[in-house]
Amino acid sequence: MGLFTKDIKTMNDLFVHQLQDIYYAEQQLVKALPKMAKKATNPQLKQGFLDHLAQTETHVKRLEQVFQMNGAEIKAVTCPAIDGIIKEADETAGEVEDKSVLDAALINAAQAAEHYEITRYGSLIAWAKQLGRSDCASVLQKTLEEEKATDQKLTTLAESKVNMRAAS
Amino acid sequence: MGLFTKDIKTMNDLFVHQLQDIYYAEQQLVKALPKMAKKATNPQLKQGFLDHLAQTETHVKRLEQVFQMNGAEIKAVTCPAIDGIIKEADETAGEVEDKSVLDAALINAAQAAEHYEITRYGSLIAWAKQLGRSDCASVLQKTLEEEKATDQKLTTLAESKVNMRAAS
Repeated sequence: MGLFTKDIKTMNDLFVHQLQDIYYAEQQLVKALPKMAKKATNPQLKQGFLDHLAQTETHVKRLEQVFQMNGAEIKAVTCPAIDGIIKEADETAGEVEDKSVLDAALINAAQAAEHYEITRYGSLIAWAKQLGRSDCASVLQKTLEEEKATDQKLTTLAESKVNMRAAS
Repeated sequence: MGLFTKDIKTMNDLFVHQLQDIYYAEQQLVKALPKMAKKATNPQLKQGFLDHLAQTETHVKRLEQVFQMNGAEIKAVTCPAIDGIIKEADETAGEVEDKSVLDAALINAAQAAEHYEITRYGSLIAWAKQLGRSDCASVLQKTLEEEKATDQKLTTLAESKVNMRAAS
């Protein structure tokens, strides 16, 4: 969409724009997660990133399904927010020397991505319901639940293992 | 911090780095919130942005306090994540024609910023506790509670007024 045009006229346009944005974000995460898994030293964290990669690939497919349910073209628009989150993760991870501190930094980066997605899916679901598209909302809800569960797993892992070791 | 140096050696370094990151983010939000208030059409949303501006100014001061408690220099490092979130908010808002759809887009943008902050403060508090700095944790906790309350207010506003009007 053009920066100086007024392409978003209705709630449905905003809904589709947000779908395009999160579609891009999920695709970037499909690229970023294997790199994060490679950097992680804690085996549970490494496996956690790989498990979430498989989920993220499903999230991409679910978004394609919602585009189709909505009669909209399957299309991504650049999402500067997720680009910023991934850039920041790369920069910070590049500056960490100690391995367990690196794991703590990677968890923090992954949680920023999860929270970003939780916000966006939350809005998409609310908008879908208001547009009378509870069918779209229920597909998106499955992804939201998985994102929340991943965030919770990362918190548990951070609290139980990685940070304790790094702070010791 | 340099991109190719390994400046983060300990959990305390990671804690300070994250303080510098969120310090930058809060400062950018101090600049962005008045613009968002100006764009908002719903009076409650407009006031909500202005109220949160006052809170955000307090958050900046609290961070300065935590830097000092930690004996660290008060310093900001560029946070590409918040830059991306704000850039995306500007771009999307610029594309919206209808006023009530614009309010829904502004709420969505503000919630992305809130969730970003909630993640970062959550990590900072966990790290402060693990570093034995419950004094720093309790200062940061006040801000976290305010960010969560703001997020909740935005959700309530979105669900009760703005989106309903935009979808009608």
